[in-house]
Amino acid sequence: MRGRRVLLLGTSLVASFLFSSQRCADAETVGGAIVRIAELEIDPAQLDRYKLALKEEIETSIRVEPGVLTLYAVSLKDHPEQIRLFETYVDAFAYQSHLQSPHFKTYKSQTQHMVKFLRLVDTEPILLGSKSR
Amino acid sequence: MRGRRVLLLGTSLVASFLFSSQRCADAETVGGAIVRIAELEIDPAQLDRYKLALKEEIETSIRVEPGVLTLYAVSLKDHPEQIRLFETYVDAFAYQSHLQSPHFKTYKSQTQHMVKFLRLVDTEPILLGSKSR
Repeated sequence: MRGRRVLLLGTSLVASFLFSSQRCADAETVGGAIVRIAELEIDPAQLDRYKLALKEEIETSIRVEPGVLTLYAVSLKDHPEQIRLFETYVDAFAYQSHLQSPHFKTYKSQTQHMVKFLRLVDTEPILLGSKSR
Repeated sequence: MRGRRVLLLGTSLVASFLFSSQRCADAETVGGAIVRIAELEIDPAQLDRYKLALKEEIETSIRVEPGVLTLYAVSLKDHPEQIRLFETYVDAFAYQSHLQSPHFKTYKSQTQHMVKFLRLVDTEPILLGSKSR
């Protein structure tokens, strides 16, 4: 009986490893992925606080939302108050789910008075080349 | 006994899920990474040929260059001739090495008459949140 139990344990570990590898590998291929670019201008006086709120929102989204693949945040070198976000979601459902998440709503309410300009750009993926995942 | 076996299975699934989450979460660290955004406008009559050349360049770069982390290419939904590239390199050396690679030089010469406008934007990473790597 112990042997069967170990076999069961081993099988489930292998299966879930394969499953998780597949889950990670899915990000390389991008069938159905939603990619959105956000262009923001932040009040310079509140830039540090904005970045803290943004980082917290990104970390939480990546950690708890299976459908959020990337949330890349950068500022323009010559204009640090100009922020660009490159967001990748598994599918449209994952994107809608993200918008409804409590951490996203917290971020929105925390930062609404810091954001002077926001433009959301819908895109069509051509190829999302990535070293791993 | 069936109950204990199910418990064992459940425990191993949870453990391996946590393990795989940790593995995936490694991608979140980005110390020293170079991130560049490229904004391009392509001659609409040559858009399909441009995309083919771009895909080949991306695939080769990701495959053969250890320092190229992401080359994400998208077009704007309302303006498919407008292309955005989100490029991540391990460090400045990897970026310079990429510019000197034969496949990048081939792409540049193949597409020089297709690109009507090109703007390269240097950025400062805030946080590159990613499910894996």
